Amino acid sequence: MAAVLPNFLKQRASLTPDRPAVLFHDQSYTFQDVFEKALKFAEKIASYSISSGDAVALLVKNKPESIFIIYALQQLGAVAVMINTRLTESEISWQITDSEAKLLIYDDEFKDTADRVQNQNGNLEKASIDELKEREPRLTFIAEEWKMDHICSIMYTSGTTGNPKGVLQSYDNHFWSAAGSALNLGLKEDDLWICAVPLFHISGYSILMRSIIYGMTVRLYERFDEEDINNKLINGEGTIISVVTVMLQRLLNNLGNKSYSSRFRCMLLGGGPAPKSILEQCAEKGIPVFQTYGMTETSSQIVTLPPEYSLSKLGSAGKPLFPAQIRIMEDGKVLPPLKAGEIVVKGPNVTKGYLKREDANRERFQDGWLFTGDIGYLDEEGFLYVLDRRSDLIISGGENIYPAEIESVLTGHPDVVEAGVIGVNDANWGQVPVAFLVVKKHAPEEELLDYCRMHLAKYKIPRRFFTVPALPRNASNKLLRRELKQLYREMMKKNAQNSDE
Amino acid sequence: MAAVLPNFLKQRASLTPDRPAVLFHDQSYTFQDVFEKALKFAEKIASYSISSGDAVALLVKNKPESIFIIYALQQLGAVAVMINTRLTESEISWQITDSEAKLLIYDDEFKDTADRVQNQNGNLEKASIDELKEREPRLTFIAEEWKMDHICSIMYTSGTTGNPKGVLQSYDNHFWSAAGSALNLGLKEDDLWICAVPLFHISGYSILMRSIIYGMTVRLYERFDEEDINNKLINGEGTIISVVTVMLQRLLNNLGNKSYSSRFRCMLLGGGPAPKSILEQCAEKGIPVFQTYGMTETSSQIVTLPPEYSLSKLGSAGKPLFPAQIRIMEDGKVLPPLKAGEIVVKGPNVTKGYLKREDANRERFQDGWLFTGDIGYLDEEGFLYVLDRRSDLIISGGENIYPAEIESVLTGHPDVVEAGVIGVNDANWGQVPVAFLVVKKHAPEEELLDYCRMHLAKYKIPRRFFTVPALPRNASNKLLRRELKQLYREMMKKNAQNSDE
Repeated sequence: MAAVLPNFLKQRASLTPDRPAVLFHDQSYTFQDVFEKALKFAEKIASYSISSGDAVALLVKNKPESIFIIYALQQLGAVAVMINTRLTESEISWQITDSEAKLLIYDDEFKDTADRVQNQNGNLEKASIDELKEREPRLTFIAEEWKMDHICSIMYTSGTTGNPKGVLQSYDNHFWSAAGSALNLGLKEDDLWICAVPLFHISGYSILMRSIIYGMTVRLYERFDEEDINNKLINGEGTIISVVTVMLQRLLNNLGNKSYSSRFRCMLLGGGPAPKSILEQCAEKGIPVFQTYGMTETSSQIVTLPPEYSLSKLGSAGKPLFPAQIRIMEDGKVLPPLKAGEIVVKGPNVTKGYLKREDANRERFQDGWLFTGDIGYLDEEGFLYVLDRRSDLIISGGENIYPAEIESVLTGHPDVVEAGVIGVNDANWGQVPVAFLVVKKHAPEEELLDYCRMHLAKYKIPRRFFTVPALPRNASNKLLRRELKQLYREMMKKNAQNSDE
Repeated sequence: MAAVLPNFLKQRASLTPDRPAVLFHDQSYTFQDVFEKALKFAEKIASYSISSGDAVALLVKNKPESIFIIYALQQLGAVAVMINTRLTESEISWQITDSEAKLLIYDDEFKDTADRVQNQNGNLEKASIDELKEREPRLTFIAEEWKMDHICSIMYTSGTTGNPKGVLQSYDNHFWSAAGSALNLGLKEDDLWICAVPLFHISGYSILMRSIIYGMTVRLYERFDEEDINNKLINGEGTIISVVTVMLQRLLNNLGNKSYSSRFRCMLLGGGPAPKSILEQCAEKGIPVFQTYGMTETSSQIVTLPPEYSLSKLGSAGKPLFPAQIRIMEDGKVLPPLKAGEIVVKGPNVTKGYLKREDANRERFQDGWLFTGDIGYLDEEGFLYVLDRRSDLIISGGENIYPAEIESVLTGHPDVVEAGVIGVNDANWGQVPVAFLVVKKHAPEEELLDYCRMHLAKYKIPRRFFTVPALPRNASNKLLRRELKQLYREMMKKNAQNSDE
């Protein structure tokens, strides 16, 4: 029988009503405020005949109303389908059809998209946040208790092939994720988590869940603003922040010679291995970096590296959270330390599966273990090293090449700001790596090659270097290598045309 | 389906092998040490044909070997029956028969008791800790994962009537208790919990569970030693300690003008409402007192009051832990705020029931709610006030009198050190309260009466005051009012005989 817990937000508002829950620019909302706002939105959403178990899609930006609406859906027992605002209309339509969402709630600026998405989904109702506010409320039942196996949210992930899959995230998953994180990072009464990652991603959504479970204040940003965030962290108005490498780089570039308040205690760094040069800069500045590995399917972090290891275990994502387990497997066998294979994870924070994807569920879940598709190894002390996402693996002359390793080296070059590496076809070797660089100033190719030769085995050295103004990244700033591949194909086509002329 | 988590101690030893787990006098054991010692004891215990689900009774004092053995039983999946070392042989025998324990592990000093208990239980095997150490080990299977609904420990509680009942405590119960406590008290990397309460009580046992779940150091005491504990807390060698009122009083008396290190952050005070005078002393000295309410059936705390409320909400036990709920009920109805009734609790830390007591389980559990038998009320902000254990309720002329309230007043008198109040039969009023006092110097009865008249409604004023050298208390220093009643009856008998002569 699944555990039953008190209604999270109601309990939180009852335990610490006056504690600040949400800060946004100069606005401040206590847990009692947030609870009341959520109840109001719940009554308005209920007027669309939404009740427990119904899916409601959210196409919203990071702002307080979005938080109230997310909590309102929880009050109704409705399932929030969190839609990435960068998606195309057809991608959004697909997710709405797949999740059988009955209602789409959207920010006004997405009105045109919402209109067209509705046209493609006959039974879908829609409401902008402003329309919702004007809506006649319907008195509705608010549950005192929640069953922990109830689905709270759905987020779509692309994976390597096929249509995006809806990850089912239960209250159990979110609670254990929050508890596991607190057992690892600790929990202080004055904690304030800065959320500058999207609420529609698990990185942002999980901060909201921690907020109500811990009774912790969240400062929300509509977009990443290194200047303002740095000021907050310098002034002690933030103790934890979730970032990916490119955000950390921007914070460091902006920080200059200043340093953070001693209250700041955790730079939670996700989205892949960080370059050594950045970690060294952080160590010099006394910035406590916790590198972490997680995904939508694990409801946020599942493996985290404390700062005392950030240089001695360079490149490691750390050890599993207390409730979780990891294995490295290949061909159905658990591999010994130092052998690279597929990362397989288990824990009460791990999704029970994908919505309506029996094949994928059979393939990726076995005895509660999730086969992540990511490649890594454990060292002899049990620290996880994530080598790469499986889809990005470059196989060259029978040797495995992991783009992230090459990117990490390139970013250490004094003239290189960011690097993205992909595999391209090669008549001799099957594939070879090529690199896309964002540079501070022009770096001659010969110099880059010399630098690579110093740090990389010969077969790992990129065959070509391309300078670009920016790298393609998704909303949480993860590098999109498939777009680099597309770019590469277009460049090659153009070259071929030019030489034909 | 019950959650599955990694083997707690194995996971902990893998996550933080080198962190100190147990301190005892000048001994120190890391989590890796403790894991290895537990494995060794597990192999020795297994040689008695103990395997998963078997009950093993422990009659042991607070010392490191007891901790290793407790963890060893967890490694085997065996159920630890934690026996109060103050019990009589017949009481111990009763618990061993009821729990169907196959093996009794005991400290050498309890050898005679163990011999006689074995004589009364034909199939019981027994082993002193020293014998266990010499035992030939049997290679045994150590589970990588634990099912959370598996029973971890059994502790017997007396209740108001009948034989003691074995409280079934699952891994789930212990985990949620630890998680709920951390969500409330916070969790710091340098936390060190001082355990001077018995391991055979939930107050002590729960500290061990927190230790392996949090990765937190425990300093163990064989007995309460206010001098040594104060030195540790003054020197910053302890951040949290579990106490009952009488222990806190002894700490304060010994502390004099000194004060605790700023590292000390939580005096967790259980075992009933604390007198105002003590709380005021603590406030003056900057000692952060967290009053708490809990019982064996809730696997430790379920309601806790943060120190910022310790005077403004004087006498309150606080609000429920995040995963828990409380209600006040009477005749099957939930009472409104400020109305006193039975305290009814629910949460994943609450036992599923008593061993082999279907009647008690039917009577005391309904829809997951436990009827505690304790009396209290909630104020309008949801703070719980525990008035008394139901069995101690004094009904006098139709008025309810709660002994703890009177004791709290009496302890505020400058000459009174401790007070115990009971109801005795009275021809006019049904029952009236009488008081037993431990005093600093003789306090004339008229002065005590004057003092009571200032603080108590007339019907609550004790009709008699008796001075005693000490109050009867159990191993966790809870006042035993039933023994005061016994004492009172004997005194009355003697008086009657004297007047007959």
